[in-house]
Amino acid sequence: IPENWDGKITIRSGLDGDIRNQGVERYKDLNSDHLDILETGNINVNTIFLISRTKQSKIEMVQACLTRIFDDKFEIQSSRSTTIKEKSVWQDIQADCVKLRPMKVKKLVSIYTSRDLAISDPFDEASNKINYLANFDEILKGHRSAWEQIWSHSKIEIKTRNNELLILRLHIFHLHQTVSRNSIGYDIGVPARGWHGEAYRGHIFWDELFIFPYINLHMPKLARSLLMYRYRRLPQARMAARENGFRGAMFPWQSGSNGREETQIIHLNPDSGRWIPDNSRIQRHINAAIPFNVWQYFQATKDMEFLANYGAEIILNTALFWSGIATYNHIRDRYEINGVMGPDEYHTRYPGSDLPGLNNNAYTNFMAAWVVKCALDLIRLFDRRLLNELSEKVGFSEKDIELWEKLHTKMYIPFLDNDIILQFEGFEKLKDLDWKKYRKEHGNTMRLDRILEKEKDSANNYRVCKQADVLMLFYLFSSETLVKVFNRMGYDFRDVQGGTTPEGIHLGAMAGTIDLIERCYTGLEIRDDVLWLSPGLPAEIKEINLNITFRSHWISFKINHKKLLVDFIKGWSEPVEINVQGQRKLFDKNDRAEFDLA
Amino acid sequence: IPENWDGKITIRSGLDGDIRNQGVERYKDLNSDHLDILETGNINVNTIFLISRTKQSKIEMVQACLTRIFDDKFEIQSSRSTTIKEKSVWQDIQADCVKLRPMKVKKLVSIYTSRDLAISDPFDEASNKINYLANFDEILKGHRSAWEQIWSHSKIEIKTRNNELLILRLHIFHLHQTVSRNSIGYDIGVPARGWHGEAYRGHIFWDELFIFPYINLHMPKLARSLLMYRYRRLPQARMAARENGFRGAMFPWQSGSNGREETQIIHLNPDSGRWIPDNSRIQRHINAAIPFNVWQYFQATKDMEFLANYGAEIILNTALFWSGIATYNHIRDRYEINGVMGPDEYHTRYPGSDLPGLNNNAYTNFMAAWVVKCALDLIRLFDRRLLNELSEKVGFSEKDIELWEKLHTKMYIPFLDNDIILQFEGFEKLKDLDWKKYRKEHGNTMRLDRILEKEKDSANNYRVCKQADVLMLFYLFSSETLVKVFNRMGYDFRDVQGGTTPEGIHLGAMAGTIDLIERCYTGLEIRDDVLWLSPGLPAEIKEINLNITFRSHWISFKINHKKLLVDFIKGWSEPVEINVQGQRKLFDKNDRAEFDLA
Repeated sequence: IPENWDGKITIRSGLDGDIRNQGVERYKDLNSDHLDILETGNINVNTIFLISRTKQSKIEMVQACLTRIFDDKFEIQSSRSTTIKEKSVWQDIQADCVKLRPMKVKKLVSIYTSRDLAISDPFDEASNKINYLANFDEILKGHRSAWEQIWSHSKIEIKTRNNELLILRLHIFHLHQTVSRNSIGYDIGVPARGWHGEAYRGHIFWDELFIFPYINLHMPKLARSLLMYRYRRLPQARMAARENGFRGAMFPWQSGSNGREETQIIHLNPDSGRWIPDNSRIQRHINAAIPFNVWQYFQATKDMEFLANYGAEIILNTALFWSGIATYNHIRDRYEINGVMGPDEYHTRYPGSDLPGLNNNAYTNFMAAWVVKCALDLIRLFDRRLLNELSEKVGFSEKDIELWEKLHTKMYIPFLDNDIILQFEGFEKLKDLDWKKYRKEHGNTMRLDRILEKEKDSANNYRVCKQADVLMLFYLFSSETLVKVFNRMGYDFRDVQGGTTPEGIHLGAMAGTIDLIERCYTGLEIRDDVLWLSPGLPAEIKEINLNITFRSHWISFKINHKKLLVDFIKGWSEPVEINVQGQRKLFDKNDRAEFDLA
Repeated sequence: IPENWDGKITIRSGLDGDIRNQGVERYKDLNSDHLDILETGNINVNTIFLISRTKQSKIEMVQACLTRIFDDKFEIQSSRSTTIKEKSVWQDIQADCVKLRPMKVKKLVSIYTSRDLAISDPFDEASNKINYLANFDEILKGHRSAWEQIWSHSKIEIKTRNNELLILRLHIFHLHQTVSRNSIGYDIGVPARGWHGEAYRGHIFWDELFIFPYINLHMPKLARSLLMYRYRRLPQARMAARENGFRGAMFPWQSGSNGREETQIIHLNPDSGRWIPDNSRIQRHINAAIPFNVWQYFQATKDMEFLANYGAEIILNTALFWSGIATYNHIRDRYEINGVMGPDEYHTRYPGSDLPGLNNNAYTNFMAAWVVKCALDLIRLFDRRLLNELSEKVGFSEKDIELWEKLHTKMYIPFLDNDIILQFEGFEKLKDLDWKKYRKEHGNTMRLDRILEKEKDSANNYRVCKQADVLMLFYLFSSETLVKVFNRMGYDFRDVQGGTTPEGIHLGAMAGTIDLIERCYTGLEIRDDVLWLSPGLPAEIKEINLNITFRSHWISFKINHKKLLVDFIKGWSEPVEINVQGQRKLFDKNDRAEFDLA
């Protein structure tokens, strides 16, 4: 609204292809120029376009942009001139404005890429689409309705004193910005840092392990699509295993579009200016995260078609990898996995050692045993015909099955005094760090590894952790499952939590704040075809409301410190059992139920 | 093996990008040049490459070619020269050969396109892959094993006197050449003429209607993938409906990559040299074929996840289209569909009329009623939450449901003497053709429309048919279903076949020879969750053996004139009922059963 002006106004509206990745200060010396601009110009008097192509992957992107000027109701007469530059194009639109009379600028942009489906050529599609686009208000309405559906699927409400809910919703929003129902059917993975910035260069790590619990409960179709991203890279992972002397599949720690290992071999310590060897690719535990996600998706959906045709191959191939990398220790009569890194990246090798890797990382060994047992459970689900096809495709035999039977009950897990799980064998012999001194000298000790390296010392020498490692087990599994698996291995693991509400431990291991609310405070777990709940709300939270999808059924929970209310809308799958702190109920039709909490 | 030569031999091995579409004589004046060759060259001394790109859709294709020469065991010393031309590249490989000593030329080619998934850049992938390819014998072994699995899934054996089995297998082979498990997950439809030649320019028509019965029983995953091809083009079909004044979706009669209508507006009669208006786009019945395929896939698999997330939208959108194009005739108290063409392309308009289209094509009207009823059945499968989302997305309301309820019971079907279904209203008033005269004069009367047009007459004036039209109903439905649907409409349709073995009628309507064996001679139909069989082998066929997949179960049939043998391997889905001529049996575990045939 022009407040103090009558007369000509010029609006500039354009498309700028001269974009560089310069969001991160310390990356500014790196190559930040990733686009070739192929063409810019006019489609017609109102519409301009810009065609760009990514330099390496050669993905073409076409944008068509239509700008129109309106008063309250009608389009305003305007004159325009278009400026066509090599890397950008814009229009200067001149119109008359009247003091205090509103003027609306509506800019619509259509964008197509050469990777889009159901298109002929991205230029044709973008330039046609812009003509068929509804007006801005119609588009906004559609946009709102789409987000309303997303929020309904993602509904989460907590009653607290502060604005925790707002933060949670920000996190949910960012999740949907990175992977959403618009990703379904496209060959898209979950990059550790989303698509927003340059950090980690868009690489895919194991982070979907923290995202799947949420996606499985809200958008199982998306979970399936993300698992297909891994499945399509199984041939590359099989090749990597073969090149490293293993059978099965070895997924890379960091990967890009074609699924090969992209982990850097050296990295810079900006504190010392030194280039340090980077062995993080030996974080082989990603080969547990991926089959774990397959199995969790299957638990949440019972999607046998996916499991039979795709998921099974991932589980069986990684089981083969684990039974290959594990070695039998005759003295211990146990299987060991040596020369790997756990999730904690402060520990890459033993003090003074030249060899990268550590022996018997507890998390890795536990997960390897879990994968192998999962393969055995899987085999029992299938008929002989399918099993024959799988064994031919994956290349496993009766002998492997025999080995897996032994392996998962005889995996070595390092303990201190038969009681406390050690992060890896020998962790107890490392030095204690003088925390007081380092905190005083450096304040922020988040990158303690860099601080120590600068001093020509190493985090490898100390009992310090960057990432949850042993604690990951408590994040992924309930106490019940942990006790069961440890017992199967012959370890007398006591449930130190003494209950089914492991919020304390989980809290420390959490990566996802949403997951904290959804799974930890509710004690939600899916196993043995049952949806288990054992809520334990902290005093600060009065109530949690939650919508989830479970095997096609739509379930709303209202949980406070005394009661848990279930509102069940039956989907198409068979009835499901919900078990709240030992109180079982079968839901076979639309129903409401209230459970008293202990 | 050189039989009479010792000494130098030169082998030329290359990649030729100078390929034109010239398989069809009468297309030779059309544009036959569809590739730009971007680059040719050497990757290393043994490997050459060629990069091409399709002119319109700009899909890049990279081939890398490695040629090596062996004696019985080892690679032979050779010298090579590479010739690099603008559109081709080849190597002349010179080696010494010894009389009667075998020499093997092994040529391996890797090929990647810019549309492939899980790749970085097609050139990188093709040039890396060629280095990692196993030797020829290994590749051949993998190839053989893949085909063995295909043949096991596609097993069909008939005992006849002649080589009908060989012909059937040729047809199965061609089907797998066009759409196969390698198509799954890619945005690929079923072109009417396969990918082999230029005819119909690769366009997609309704032909999957004839292919789905086979695919549903052997590769349901592929069926799903092909239906997704249609689903992705639903927005385009919705736009087409809107432009033609309808709600819902109107799929095009012919389409290409972006799903818009590609049917020609005029076509050439090569006999007369005249360009004739082509109205075949008003074959709106394709909007019945697509939802019919969705429903048949669902019947075969019970894949609720697909139906809920994708298939339902196709069915509901096409139902909206049909209830929009249908008009209510107050005098008849029935709904009519006017101005369309049925499958029979000899009939495009009434004699002497300027307006394209015919009224109340029996097949179209029947199918429209079927789609609308299907939408109603579908709605009953879903919970209120999903229905709300669907109604918002598709844009239908209670009012539409009310209309559908009326429409499917009050659709008008033209009959002659209340007894014989007329192809369309007024078909009975057309002239009879003097067949004797035309057969004598022209011999082959396959393109009678062209012959008549040359004489300035028209096939529209005669009771002649090019394609099965009314008969399509007997191809798609069993007598039981037909009687049921007609009765629902208030038509006293008598089962003129007088039994459940409709081989005669089906035979005339058949498009797929495989389907003839699999569904018609066996009387196989899936409805109401039951697999129905009612075999009626012609005298010439002593026995049929058949493997199919039904809802994850693996079923082998052995059928002769007296008995039907079922070998059932249980998959993961719930037990299924097989009904053989009224004899019911529930299969809930691996089992064999024998049924006596009437």
